[in-house]
Amino acid sequence: MLVLFTDFGNQDPYVGQVKGILAQLAPATPVVDLLHAVPDYNAHAGAVLLAALAPAFPVPSVFLCVVDPGVGGPRDALAVRADGRWYVGPDNGLLSIVAGRAGRAEYWRIDWRPASLSASFHGRDLFAPVAARLTHEGSIPEGLTAIEAPVVRFDPGDLPRVVYIDHYGNAWTGLRAGVIGDATLELRGHRLARHRVFQEAGRGEAFWYENSAGLVEIAVNRGSAAQVLGLSVGDTVRVDGHGTRH
Amino acid sequence: MLVLFTDFGNQDPYVGQVKGILAQLAPATPVVDLLHAVPDYNAHAGAVLLAALAPAFPVPSVFLCVVDPGVGGPRDALAVRADGRWYVGPDNGLLSIVAGRAGRAEYWRIDWRPASLSASFHGRDLFAPVAARLTHEGSIPEGLTAIEAPVVRFDPGDLPRVVYIDHYGNAWTGLRAGVIGDATLELRGHRLARHRVFQEAGRGEAFWYENSAGLVEIAVNRGSAAQVLGLSVGDTVRVDGHGTRH
Amino acid sequence: MLVLFTDFGNQDPYVGQVKGILAQLAPATPVVDLLHAVPDYNAHAGAVLLAALAPAFPVPSVFLCVVDPGVGGPRDALAVRADGRWYVGPDNGLLSIVAGRAGRAEYWRIDWRPASLSASFHGRDLFAPVAARLTHEGSIPEGLTAIEAPVVRFDPGDLPRVVYIDHYGNAWTGLRAGVIGDATLELRGHRLARHRVFQEAGRGEAFWYENSAGLVEIAVNRGSAAQVLGLSVGDTVRVDGHGTRH
Repeated sequence: MLVLFTDFGNQDPYVGQVKGILAQLAPATPVVDLLHAVPDYNAHAGAVLLAALAPAFPVPSVFLCVVDPGVGGPRDALAVRADGRWYVGPDNGLLSIVAGRAGRAEYWRIDWRPASLSASFHGRDLFAPVAARLTHEGSIPEGLTAIEAPVVRFDPGDLPRVVYIDHYGNAWTGLRAGVIGDATLELRGHRLARHRVFQEAGRGEAFWYENSAGLVEIAVNRGSAAQVLGLSVGDTVRVDGHGTRH
Repeated sequence: MLVLFTDFGNQDPYVGQVKGILAQLAPATPVVDLLHAVPDYNAHAGAVLLAALAPAFPVPSVFLCVVDPGVGGPRDALAVRADGRWYVGPDNGLLSIVAGRAGRAEYWRIDWRPASLSASFHGRDLFAPVAARLTHEGSIPEGLTAIEAPVVRFDPGDLPRVVYIDHYGNAWTGLRAGVIGDATLELRGHRLARHRVFQEAGRGEAFWYENSAGLVEIAVNRGSAAQVLGLSVGDTVRVDGHGTRH
Repeated sequence: MLVLFTDFGNQDPYVGQVKGILAQLAPATPVVDLLHAVPDYNAHAGAVLLAALAPAFPVPSVFLCVVDPGVGGPRDALAVRADGRWYVGPDNGLLSIVAGRAGRAEYWRIDWRPASLSASFHGRDLFAPVAARLTHEGSIPEGLTAIEAPVVRFDPGDLPRVVYIDHYGNAWTGLRAGVIGDATLELRGHRLARHRVFQEAGRGEAFWYENSAGLVEIAVNRGSAAQVLGLSVGDTVRVDGHGTRH
């Protein structure tokens, strides 16, 4: 399975161009759009989301991951094999949390370059062909050079910030619910208790719960937490009673 | 064919997670995204839209239908076979109009539960695996219990309300054009005549016509009816001259 | 490969209905969503975008192209074979630039009509079945009549206007970068120099560059050009120092 994970947006022609390449180079492999709404240019939020979402996909999926504000600059291109799944993308930290949390991770720098490489769309020209090639199981493709570690790495622990706001207005944080237990949270002056399910909260009540990706999510029953609490990606979350362990 | 019909939105990671499951459990079945923009939490609007859109799909399609504000609460999970098509989703009325209008409908309560069931995402954990299993023709899967009727049912007749507003600003109603004939409509203080095609209306004129799903749709030629008339989902439509027959 | 190119939007049920038809009539052909956010009703912007994006797709792809404000009126339906790729859509100029720039283009009027043709959705009822039939290689399907030229044609040269604004706020123009060289641009009172990559511009600086489709694109490094410069689709761009050659 080829899994797409980008900040390309869902309405622009970027995803379609990538799929045109994949349909030619890996026609037998199903392609799944996991997320194209990573907060724009935000590799750190993307890294947190990828680490939360990827482990549910089967081994050996290949993830094509592009949040790439440094495209056209000196950043390297990277392939990672972590717990049996492949990840291809820029070496800007985006792949570093899923790799840092894996039981086993190996890294390759992508030295291969296509005959024609645009200045701004390596997702289509460079990363998509490499990802397609990695779906053909067997040996490591030519043009990949094994390296010890990527150039850029984010802390693989929890990130006490809002990393995503969904269309319901629910705010995903970079905190893993299993790590913080039943603590009360504080953000933007509000104190939020934990509930198990939306039904436990009163209509209009703000709370947090463990979302379906295992992360702490801020929600309002039948309302938009983002609107009610005035939340934005990047907002800091404080965990009361005990520190976050990371 | 597996047809997805939800309020998950088109930019969040929810649809991609569901497709990751379907690609594993029903890899040979094509998946079509029919609608992920059912008005949030609005099972009644969803039920009207599903009934209008589903009959054009081939027999035996399987519809995965999730508009599920009661997830994690006591509502049942439901599978319906209506006129040869399968529908899987929560027992909150969402499947009841397409079933109520069918020549023949049979109902099963889904008693099967997966080993791991999140509190908030039964679309991925419960409904998707059941829908995938139903694409394998043959006997009814284990864990489905035949029942007489669902717990929640909406009136299968017409709904004289706005149920959807598309990105052009056209407003779909729950009235079937074949039922109301050439009546004039009233909504939000405006009186609207019927036209056959957009070309018949003057530029900027508000009118109604039978849309491609057979429903009464409010439109403005080369403009946004939602903006010009100030429309929202839920607005009441009055049919002049004769009552709606339902 | 079937490539979809429309102004249907990404959230409405229109694309899904088209795909339901294609999955029945051309089940073995992969379908790629290239763009469903052509500016609404804007066949000219669509024609420019299609001409820029289509040539990267393999021969013999079939493009289903629908930007069709005249649906239900007297406009013809058209099939074009240009440089080995097929294009199906309304005869309103939408297909005329990609055809006008091709080394070789042939035209057919679509006289075939389905048993049931809605007044407003020929993308689903008329164009999708024809496109599906064209994926079955071999002879020209019945119901297509060879013609000398389409009824409506746009100038195949460059269009000095903004034709698309992406979700990052970058503004695509209808100017081909290869044609205008290193000229300075003027739009909305701003003068913009050319850079090769985003990295060359200062943070917050507005500039233009050759985008991944070969077009002049207005951008702001780590910002939204559309917001910073107040841009809209249709804005005129002036090329300084020399005229645009078209």
